[in-house]
Amino acid sequence: MRKISLKDDIYLYWASGSIPCWRVQIALSEKHIIDYKHQMISLDQNEHKMKPIIDQNLRGQIPSLKIGNIVLNESLAICFYLEDLIKNQGIKFLPQDPYLRAQVLQCTFDSLRLQKFGSENVIYYIWHTPPERYNIDLLNKRKEILVDELIRWNNRFKQQNQENLYAVGNLFTLADIFLLPQLAFLVHCGYPIRLHEQLDSYYKHLCDRPSIHQSFPPHWLTTTSNILTDCSNLILKQ
Amino acid sequence: MRKISLKDDIYLYWASGSIPCWRVQIALSEKHIIDYKHQMISLDQNEHKMKPIIDQNLRGQIPSLKIGNIVLNESLAICFYLEDLIKNQGIKFLPQDPYLRAQVLQCTFDSLRLQKFGSENVIYYIWHTPPERYNIDLLNKRKEILVDELIRWNNRFKQQNQENLYAVGNLFTLADIFLLPQLAFLVHCGYPIRLHEQLDSYYKHLCDRPSIHQSFPPHWLTTTSNILTDCSNLILKQ
Repeated sequence: MRKISLKDDIYLYWASGSIPCWRVQIALSEKHIIDYKHQMISLDQNEHKMKPIIDQNLRGQIPSLKIGNIVLNESLAICFYLEDLIKNQGIKFLPQDPYLRAQVLQCTFDSLRLQKFGSENVIYYIWHTPPERYNIDLLNKRKEILVDELIRWNNRFKQQNQENLYAVGNLFTLADIFLLPQLAFLVHCGYPIRLHEQLDSYYKHLCDRPSIHQSFPPHWLTTTSNILTDCSNLILKQ
Repeated sequence: MRKISLKDDIYLYWASGSIPCWRVQIALSEKHIIDYKHQMISLDQNEHKMKPIIDQNLRGQIPSLKIGNIVLNESLAICFYLEDLIKNQGIKFLPQDPYLRAQVLQCTFDSLRLQKFGSENVIYYIWHTPPERYNIDLLNKRKEILVDELIRWNNRFKQQNQENLYAVGNLFTLADIFLLPQLAFLVHCGYPIRLHEQLDSYYKHLCDRPSIHQSFPPHWLTTTSNILTDCSNLILKQ
């Protein structure tokens, strides 16, 4: 594949707090693609449904990444594409060793479950339901499922990686690009990650990594939410 | 990577009608891995939560594929892993040409939207809600979103590929491994795919492909459902 020009050939539309956008920003940074053109847009003002994003992808979805004449807007597709396009620059998203490679792939797709259990089933439910219409039993059940899932992740770290530095093995991989932003979203919403010792140490370690630190969703630096703080009761019950 | 022994090193647990399992069966077949060991289990009888599946993957999820000492249970992870492991046998899931490769990746992940709009939001809602508790307005709205999505896919075929043979370009790829089973599930549930001309011709063409024909979910050959037949009204309204 031809060498892409980092400054001229890439254009990214992204939004602060969008997990799929953040994954792409981390992936680009890890491939040492830093000085690309980009624009932050506002989801609140529906800017993703306006030109020129619609020109770039018909669904008006973000991230919307243009590389030369190629447009991609699925974060997973983007990461796999970047991995093939840019082999000799920055980290490898997938290790060569077959056993580790399988673990990274499994862990990457497995981490999408947190998106369902945390973001879709709990956070978006709370955001998009008027408080007087909350189904409290349903919401509590969903929070329990989320807590169980995080306990499972914590146990995974406990069994697998004594230092809890990375999701798989001793290298930063695609699995971290997917797991870390998802955890960070829960933490942003008040999830008491400190109660999961191994997960907490993994989270803190990776938040200091330049690719993640520098792309941390800007509006999260000044706002927080407490909609998941009461998960501490459910964790302590276990 | 070492050559795997097709007969001895692979074991797949799968269930009839599970779309992720079917993807894996198609992927194995397209890589000319035919005579592997496998076992069909019953989801109705909760066999995925029993030994020996739990021994193979703790979550008790299917597909559960063992290749040597590696266990994978996410269909996407399995397909990417097989693509790397078996380079020179059967089809390539991803084309080498960067532009086509990007399109295949985008289309593959894009097709997962049908899983959300069709399976999760409509089919599982109907299956798991007692009829007297259906929220008819919600259900109709969801059916409209599903129909819109399929109209979009049909238009995509119309614009892109005059013969409607494959999801991307003129080769069977990963995008077809993901799109076809999802469409087939809708058709099994009565979706009137004949009303989307290009999608219908794509669907019929691929159903005859040996990897798909031979792995067609066995219980779909003797049962059908009509829960999506009324989508025809919504299509004709457009």
